[in-house]
Amino acid sequence: MPYYIGDVIKESKRLVIRTPEEFKKTGIDVKIKTQVDGVDIQKGSLYLSDGTTLPYDLLVMATGADALRLDIPGADMDGVHVIRNLMDTLKLKAYLNEQGCRKAVLIGAGYIGMEMCEALRNLGIEVKVMDILPRPAIRWDAEFTKMIVEELVKNQVEFIPETKPLAIEKGKDYRLKLLTSGGDLNADLVLMGVGTKRSTALAESMGLAMGESGAIKVDFRQKTSREGVYAVGDCCEVFHKVAGKWVYFPLGDIANKQGRVAGQNIGGYPAEFPGIVGAQAFKVFNLEVAATGLTEEEAAKFGFQPVSVLIWGLPVGRPMAKGEKLGVKLVGDKTTGKLLGGQCIGEKGAVQRISSLSVALWAGLSVDEIGYLDLPYAPPFGGAWDAIHIAAQSLRGKM
Amino acid sequence: MPYYIGDVIKESKRLVIRTPEEFKKTGIDVKIKTQVDGVDIQKGSLYLSDGTTLPYDLLVMATGADALRLDIPGADMDGVHVIRNLMDTLKLKAYLNEQGCRKAVLIGAGYIGMEMCEALRNLGIEVKVMDILPRPAIRWDAEFTKMIVEELVKNQVEFIPETKPLAIEKGKDYRLKLLTSGGDLNADLVLMGVGTKRSTALAESMGLAMGESGAIKVDFRQKTSREGVYAVGDCCEVFHKVAGKWVYFPLGDIANKQGRVAGQNIGGYPAEFPGIVGAQAFKVFNLEVAATGLTEEEAAKFGFQPVSVLIWGLPVGRPMAKGEKLGVKLVGDKTTGKLLGGQCIGEKGAVQRISSLSVALWAGLSVDEIGYLDLPYAPPFGGAWDAIHIAAQSLRGKM
Repeated sequence: MPYYIGDVIKESKRLVIRTPEEFKKTGIDVKIKTQVDGVDIQKGSLYLSDGTTLPYDLLVMATGADALRLDIPGADMDGVHVIRNLMDTLKLKAYLNEQGCRKAVLIGAGYIGMEMCEALRNLGIEVKVMDILPRPAIRWDAEFTKMIVEELVKNQVEFIPETKPLAIEKGKDYRLKLLTSGGDLNADLVLMGVGTKRSTALAESMGLAMGESGAIKVDFRQKTSREGVYAVGDCCEVFHKVAGKWVYFPLGDIANKQGRVAGQNIGGYPAEFPGIVGAQAFKVFNLEVAATGLTEEEAAKFGFQPVSVLIWGLPVGRPMAKGEKLGVKLVGDKTTGKLLGGQCIGEKGAVQRISSLSVALWAGLSVDEIGYLDLPYAPPFGGAWDAIHIAAQSLRGKM
Repeated sequence: MPYYIGDVIKESKRLVIRTPEEFKKTGIDVKIKTQVDGVDIQKGSLYLSDGTTLPYDLLVMATGADALRLDIPGADMDGVHVIRNLMDTLKLKAYLNEQGCRKAVLIGAGYIGMEMCEALRNLGIEVKVMDILPRPAIRWDAEFTKMIVEELVKNQVEFIPETKPLAIEKGKDYRLKLLTSGGDLNADLVLMGVGTKRSTALAESMGLAMGESGAIKVDFRQKTSREGVYAVGDCCEVFHKVAGKWVYFPLGDIANKQGRVAGQNIGGYPAEFPGIVGAQAFKVFNLEVAATGLTEEEAAKFGFQPVSVLIWGLPVGRPMAKGEKLGVKLVGDKTTGKLLGGQCIGEKGAVQRISSLSVALWAGLSVDEIGYLDLPYAPPFGGAWDAIHIAAQSLRGKM
């Protein structure tokens, strides 16, 4: 597996990354630009691409995931990018700086696509974003994604729904031509944000047990099925506290926590990773978009009896409101009365509400209790009845 | 008790208040500008200031609290104001509109004082704020109140600590002269924000049991010691879930919730008010200031073994930071490992963190768990390790 450490320092002013030499001083031997070609799990040996063999007592699999590249003709052409890790970003930046870009087409309107719309528009680039699905950020309610599309339009980004990319060719006026089921699109840059592919080939070659999701199976201490082998981050599963199941949820903050837990266990300070509730957020122009827990569809799939409610409230007290909107959707379980999930959208306050609801999910609070939670109230930050309270009380009425 | 409904509609454009006639159409008889002079609790009768007697089956005490007016000479002079309810505000607005104001002195640097500093500065008035205590918003840590004082100074507000107001006299160049232990201050307006006084005289005359705090004793259904008599809001106590005690905590959002619970019980839908955790927030210029749970001093008083930590984090991911600061203080209990309280300050994100910590307190989460909470992460809203995580892990190390 490649380690991209050290060789990128010069290219990124804001990142402070230590060189292998600096690491060595702290007693850590770092190999960069080196692939692990194979593992002899009986002997405890790694076979490296530089021809050497590295013995180990304990091994941590942190092979992550890669951005998916669509399998269409021209997907590898110059000017076609994906974005997932630091190297992807540096490649994209170099391309923009060296070649310039007037028009970009983004394939995939997930949250990476949304974030990149904003980033590219801020560089003055004309942006279109297409998806095979009818809405961007499809995990969110249709009322909320309507607001996202409005925000895109307000910022001169065209959203092209239900369209399939077919091929990429050399263009005339623009460097690339993207052929789609809805016609051709010109662009200097095609950026694919169509999902990730976990890097588990090495783990599979080692015979590590895989979970139902296809990612590496771990326990609460980040141990894999093999003694002395840990796994953390986007290559392994994580326990979803709301679903009560091990799932695949490749997000950076989760990876960080898993790394810490594995490190503690390896260092002799036993620790367990308690799991996640599915909290996530992104910003697209002036909109905060966030969610936690399960959607109705997911909840039904996991055997719950989901009931939901969607309200439009305010992120500030009514006398201070200047037209801001705060959408809150809650999903509860009819059988247990517990909260199962939440979604929020708005110019401000959406992440705040999802953060609080994430703690409520973590603790397994009932919808009833959420209707009376003691939250810090002051008119610049919300109403005496917060949008969370109003949504919870409305949901309770339906349960 | 007076009811200020209806007669203020014309004066306040943004408030929609129904008139007694409008209420009558919905089957509710509202009497305004009428005092309850006495209650015969045996007969179930109210004796009103208009000479009439009103029989009742069920009675709700919602007499609230009044702003304290310092007992110093001149405290009742024209131009000396308090601020607590709608009428106070309208009186103050009328005074400012009719008489004008060049300089204001605020007595009391609690959160009402802080909010009024901002409101008056926004009107272009020169503002000084004094307190007998050494720091504003004294419930917050000294590191945080230092930041508040800096914010005041940045906005041309002078904070005068450890100074006692002695008397108010007629002034020369300005309409009032405030004599203090630190010298004389000129002002056109003196505003007292020195605390509240619960209105419990009527309740006491009725023989209702009072709690240790001196406010009306209620149970979780908002029932007082007398059958058929409920109490809600700033005249009664509330259960503090962290302290495990009934306390006096006169805040508007709590009053709203208590009113709803009493209404449900009266309407035949039994409900209990689960209590509070002490969440509160205010804004002063560009600073969010918030707290929840117990301070170290309060925690010690309630028999806990408090340990605390204070960290300075970021409200955004490090690569996006532009010099913003987010202060987080956490208090935990050495004996149980649980969180007892938190305080936050910053240009943004402070209320978000306190809202989440309030839910954690509500659910009785341990400091250990808080260090691993799944919160919605994206760089515009925080780091992969949120300031909450960093503070909790730091506190755990001390416990």
